[in-house]
Amino acid sequence: RSSETKIANPKQVSYCFPIPYFCGMTTIRLQNYAVHLGNPKAAFAELLAHGQYTKIAVLTDTNTSTHCLRLWRALTGMQEDVSWVIPSGEVHKSVATCAEIWQMMLAARLDRRALIVNLGGGVIGDMGGFCAATYMRGVDFVQVPTTLLSQVDASIGSKLGIDFGGVKNSVGLFSQPAAVFVCPDFLATLAKRELRSGFAEMLKHGLIADAEQWNTLKNLDLATVSDWESMILASLEVKRNFVEADPLERGIRKALNFGHTFGHAIEGISLETDTPLLHGEAVAIGMICEAYLSQKLAGLPQKSLDDIVSNLLIRYGKTELDKKNWTAYINLMQQDKKNSHGKILCTLLSDIGQVVVNQPITTNDIRSCLAFCADL
Amino acid sequence: RSSETKIANPKQVSYCFPIPYFCGMTTIRLQNYAVHLGNPKAAFAELLAHGQYTKIAVLTDTNTSTHCLRLWRALTGMQEDVSWVIPSGEVHKSVATCAEIWQMMLAARLDRRALIVNLGGGVIGDMGGFCAATYMRGVDFVQVPTTLLSQVDASIGSKLGIDFGGVKNSVGLFSQPAAVFVCPDFLATLAKRELRSGFAEMLKHGLIADAEQWNTLKNLDLATVSDWESMILASLEVKRNFVEADPLERGIRKALNFGHTFGHAIEGISLETDTPLLHGEAVAIGMICEAYLSQKLAGLPQKSLDDIVSNLLIRYGKTELDKKNWTAYINLMQQDKKNSHGKILCTLLSDIGQVVVNQPITTNDIRSCLAFCADL
Repeated sequence: RSSETKIANPKQVSYCFPIPYFCGMTTIRLQNYAVHLGNPKAAFAELLAHGQYTKIAVLTDTNTSTHCLRLWRALTGMQEDVSWVIPSGEVHKSVATCAEIWQMMLAARLDRRALIVNLGGGVIGDMGGFCAATYMRGVDFVQVPTTLLSQVDASIGSKLGIDFGGVKNSVGLFSQPAAVFVCPDFLATLAKRELRSGFAEMLKHGLIADAEQWNTLKNLDLATVSDWESMILASLEVKRNFVEADPLERGIRKALNFGHTFGHAIEGISLETDTPLLHGEAVAIGMICEAYLSQKLAGLPQKSLDDIVSNLLIRYGKTELDKKNWTAYINLMQQDKKNSHGKILCTLLSDIGQVVVNQPITTNDIRSCLAFCADL
Repeated sequence: RSSETKIANPKQVSYCFPIPYFCGMTTIRLQNYAVHLGNPKAAFAELLAHGQYTKIAVLTDTNTSTHCLRLWRALTGMQEDVSWVIPSGEVHKSVATCAEIWQMMLAARLDRRALIVNLGGGVIGDMGGFCAATYMRGVDFVQVPTTLLSQVDASIGSKLGIDFGGVKNSVGLFSQPAAVFVCPDFLATLAKRELRSGFAEMLKHGLIADAEQWNTLKNLDLATVSDWESMILASLEVKRNFVEADPLERGIRKALNFGHTFGHAIEGISLETDTPLLHGEAVAIGMICEAYLSQKLAGLPQKSLDDIVSNLLIRYGKTELDKKNWTAYINLMQQDKKNSHGKILCTLLSDIGQVVVNQPITTNDIRSCLAFCADL
């Protein structure tokens, strides 16, 4: 098992690094919790022994209750006291669903010493974590991400929340889980399109911090991957480095938002249509847009732009961005959490593997960018 | 101005203590923020200069928008960018009102560098703080408590939240304000009954930590008080000591819950009637109940029980607790946040000024206690 994966930018040495914990598992130690990659059995048992929880509750959605809960029980031997199923999908990442979850927590008479296990993709992790962190002012929760997207993205960083008022993640908080368990076994349950969506965040990690990783990943055929674990580990290390350097996203952590200023807006609008994009699909378009702006505003070489655009187009295809939505995109971007003092602030690349944050962009920049996409 | 007020139990010396900050103001420094008692002008100006906020928004309710906002503007010279008014009253401390507040924050295009000023009683502070702490994963907020209750109770401790599913404060979190401003000037705007309600928490601070304070306060005629500032300071010091010893309420901070196991249940039921009790009125009944249990279970001397009961009865009168509600009280107490492993845990007194936390009580104890109250 690799514990020597190249450490990506920012270059500071972290005091905690992956160690082979025991056969079949790698543990990434963060400041106040650990991400366990691989077989979860021993680490989960240790968590329960240490936590002395009064009750264990499992939150799943209609997908993961069918495809993942039995596998998780088999992997860990967990016997939960109560399990909940909510409808799957980003549209349910809402305050209304939170109210249902809080109600179920009260109905199950969970006290402050209960444990919530969030078993699912980003929606379950973000919203289940938010509900746990606010129920009785906070009970312990563990994240068990089941999609590639949530394994490489949501599993590190302590961001929790819901979509509100049409703005993604506009209500939420930073709160740390008791532990995170990343089990590549769950990836076998995913549709190809889901896997490809999550892969966009891995490509992003290469683009913002590690040109070598980008070069490896960009040619990869997802159907042939056998060792997800080491690839996920490399990707998590990029994310970990940015998060630890700036836990509350005051500065350099915004690097991880590359592709997301446009991506969130495009995803937001698409969710209101009959053909919603997956998060990673929207981020792939966002990365094309922001690579274009990077060439225009941040010194990204033309050949790097071509490399990024051609590879993303090959993998994700071209999505038409209807011109009637351009104003709506701009409105959503003006509400992006990264903004400050009325300026739209964007994360751009000065080269592949090199990132600059807080770059102001204008509505004209956005329009020329959307025109560029239309002409691809 | 008193900076030598007796430090109450727990007896540990705190590294931060009240200092005469400048003429007309006393500042209590907590771990990550300060409570400014008295004239707020200079400290508020310093906060704005330091914070460089993009926008200032003020949250008020229908009472404080009328009676307090103009006074606050006059005291500080504040010119807000946007002000919001919500209906007053505990019944509006709900997830529905939170949704309205978040919506107003989005509509005002507040970014993460905005400042929210919560001007009002406990409802405004708890709910406005919760909304601020979760909007865009947290923007700065200041608490300006306008009732005696919120000045002596909610202003220290970082507890934020709302009532949910019929359980008080069942959804919320711990998050620290940028600053708290306690201005006794606002007390002149209060009805007598409001003032008396807040005074119950001051009496509680005496009972749990300082017999001398209890003896001073118990005979006090509220209509004749001229120096609220030094009395509030003494009360805040009791609270500060418990909060700093145990910020997340794992143990000794539960001392502050004396009177609240019964009080919350009694308040909860009364809110559903046409004659709702104020919080402090319910806590006064709760203190009678828990003093009775203290004598029965925790060694409180009979003469101390008599002292507590007679003084609370004189000040707050006797409230009939309808026998048909007894089961509902018990059900609510079983959902109290202090509970663990299925036991109802209560804070009791071993004497006036001496407290013991995590005392298990049975439903039989509750029934005999309610019978005691009925016979008073």
